[in-house]
Amino acid sequence: MIRDLTDAEARAALVNKWAVPDDVLPAWVAEMDYAVAPAITRALHEAVERGVTGYPALEHDGGALGAAYAGFARRRHGWEVDPGLVLPTVDVSAGVRLVLDALSDPGPVVLPLPAYAPQLDLPGVTGRERWDLPVTPDGDAYALDLDHLERLLERGARTLLLTQPHNPCGHVHTRAELEAVRDLVVRHGARVVSDEIHAPLVLPGAGHVPYLSLEGTADHAVALVAASKAFNTAGLKCAQVVSGDAATHARLTAVPMVRNDSWSSLGVVASVAAYTEGDAWLDALLVRLDEQRSLLADLLAEHLPAARMRPLEATYLAWLDLRSSGHDDPAAVALEHGRVRLAPGHDYHPGLVGHARLNVATSATRLSEIVRRLAVALSPR
Amino acid sequence: MIRDLTDAEARAALVNKWAVPDDVLPAWVAEMDYAVAPAITRALHEAVERGVTGYPALEHDGGALGAAYAGFARRRHGWEVDPGLVLPTVDVSAGVRLVLDALSDPGPVVLPLPAYAPQLDLPGVTGRERWDLPVTPDGDAYALDLDHLERLLERGARTLLLTQPHNPCGHVHTRAELEAVRDLVVRHGARVVSDEIHAPLVLPGAGHVPYLSLEGTADHAVALVAASKAFNTAGLKCAQVVSGDAATHARLTAVPMVRNDSWSSLGVVASVAAYTEGDAWLDALLVRLDEQRSLLADLLAEHLPAARMRPLEATYLAWLDLRSSGHDDPAAVALEHGRVRLAPGHDYHPGLVGHARLNVATSATRLSEIVRRLAVALSPR
Ligand SMILES: Cc1ncc(COP(=O)(O)O)c(C=O)c1O
Ligand SMILES: Cc1ncc(COP(=O)(O)O)c(C=O)c1O
Repeated sequence: MIRDLTDAEARAALVNKWAVPDDVLPAWVAEMDYAVAPAITRALHEAVERGVTGYPALEHDGGALGAAYAGFARRRHGWEVDPGLVLPTVDVSAGVRLVLDALSDPGPVVLPLPAYAPQLDLPGVTGRERWDLPVTPDGDAYALDLDHLERLLERGARTLLLTQPHNPCGHVHTRAELEAVRDLVVRHGARVVSDEIHAPLVLPGAGHVPYLSLEGTADHAVALVAASKAFNTAGLKCAQVVSGDAATHARLTAVPMVRNDSWSSLGVVASVAAYTEGDAWLDALLVRLDEQRSLLADLLAEHLPAARMRPLEATYLAWLDLRSSGHDDPAAVALEHGRVRLAPGHDYHPGLVGHARLNVATSATRLSEIVRRLAVALSPR
Repeated sequence: MIRDLTDAEARAALVNKWAVPDDVLPAWVAEMDYAVAPAITRALHEAVERGVTGYPALEHDGGALGAAYAGFARRRHGWEVDPGLVLPTVDVSAGVRLVLDALSDPGPVVLPLPAYAPQLDLPGVTGRERWDLPVTPDGDAYALDLDHLERLLERGARTLLLTQPHNPCGHVHTRAELEAVRDLVVRHGARVVSDEIHAPLVLPGAGHVPYLSLEGTADHAVALVAASKAFNTAGLKCAQVVSGDAATHARLTAVPMVRNDSWSSLGVVASVAAYTEGDAWLDALLVRLDEQRSLLADLLAEHLPAARMRPLEATYLAWLDLRSSGHDDPAAVALEHGRVRLAPGHDYHPGLVGHARLNVATSATRLSEIVRRLAVALSPR
């Protein structure tokens, strides 16, 4: 059911990821070298034929998209979402900008690091300070420093930007972790923006706990969700903001139109198709990504035993601690000497050396070649 | 070549414009009840088949889109655009937000009124004051009040947001008008953001003068352009910012990614198809819109002789002065008593009474029915 794209197909389809020189293997941006789910392709063809190229419906009451997402959330996460509280937005990053602008107090935004690189700019773009909450690369597991978080909240931080499941660390936050976060946030009357774009990509062994599914979060949190990472449709431009309560949703629909009217009509079509007809394909994808995860572990054990990696619980993005190789910027070395493009760790955690993010969502052959090239590139010359 | 959509087709295609009750005729939002150009439909099918659903290419050097737009600008407007200075952005409104944020001094933004309604919020959303420059509804022609503009610039306005061709007034600014604007702006070291989304829709009898085609504008202006209004693809989400010089373009490409990475990959595909293969269809559209314009004039003469309308030189949007009907909000009356949805004039010019905008881009039959219903609704009861 998951069809690997040939190089030529991938180059023609993934015009950003594969915009690399011919001799470079791309393992950087979060896109998968697999064919789009047939249900989505079908829905897009049908919509193009119908001429759905004009403005999308406003859907302030959730509309077809809200209903589709609510069904998906129920089936995949056991989470009851009020379809009327699902608001389209063009993409997750723009959605975070929207909710910071529209909902957050002007005070500082706490960002756990590493973080999805463009998130680093989001507080500043909304006129807020960014206060970093570094997660140590040395622990055996990914763990938010709750004492540090508490100090930041005490000192006046007003919003926590949580990414869960986490990119680039692949961590799935447990209920206990999220409850501890919630307790601190509630105590300080702060707000949570929960970027859950990777929620559909929780791998066997872990389970996604939507932040808003916890008690006592409805009035201080929103979730950003999208079909885009799981279904490879980030270029179709439709994400969703899920509000915890009607008051929050009303604040979001009351903003001037220019703050939130850029989602695409074909993005809506693709999202509805993904959410309503995508389960079987997504199940097959998770099986496949589980295999890729195992393959990566085997390849690292064989070729790069010094690489450290915490358990990859979700996403197809592996966060590699390559400090033992002695290279500050292993991604640059890998590109120059291995002709493989990874994402540099310092983009996700400024000042952190020796890390890189590797995208495993490709063919087994390419993944093997990627790790082999990486190992050669990093080995002493 | 221009195919009228049936009611059922229009309802299925234009999910925003036609989201009206069954007995209401929509003549409000700027979309046309015509089938999409076959070249665009073809290009979209091909791209969907190829799987172009991921992130678009960054195109900071203009790319295929820049080249396509430059060709279009040369053929249609006799304007030489450097393809490398064409930057994609998700839509025109977001593009105006981007350029205000990234290029404009923090001072006030001058907005000629009436204006495309969402523009009224753009200065505020970027943290700037809006200073209105009302254009009197009483003159025989649309004319910017240059003395007033000069006073606003003297008092510290830093940016002029120009819409040309104009929505909702249908005016095509002459070279002399634009030169007078330029001279004032240059004298005060201010900036121009020229929204030229309607440029492809200049009707027989007038000619579009791109603001950036004037001497001495390159360092203080950008243009926002798009295929979306002329080709009915506003839901596909790809507009373009054209810079006058490399320094301006460099400032725009240097902004944090979250300020400008939301355009859609299928929007790029549709735009390239429109710009490279759309000329014949666009020519046919202009012939058709010219007919609609004549038909409107005849219908008004017959059914609503008291309606005042300045020459419709561009766009398919007619700005009707219906003050003589005695109704402050003729669009509301038309909806209630005529079951026809126009756009209320006060959305475009707060405080202005007795005006409405009527969209003529529909079938001859529907346009006749729209005007007939409007006349009946506005007549004394
Ligand atoms: C955590 C996270 N948030 C947001 C995004 C970007 O999403 P979008 O393209 O919808 O802005 C990504 C992309 O990989 C991501 O990993
Ligand atoms: C003058 C003008 N600018 C901008 C827009 C909106 O364009 P977009 O949908 O690309 O934001 C319109 C829509 O009709 C318009 O008339």
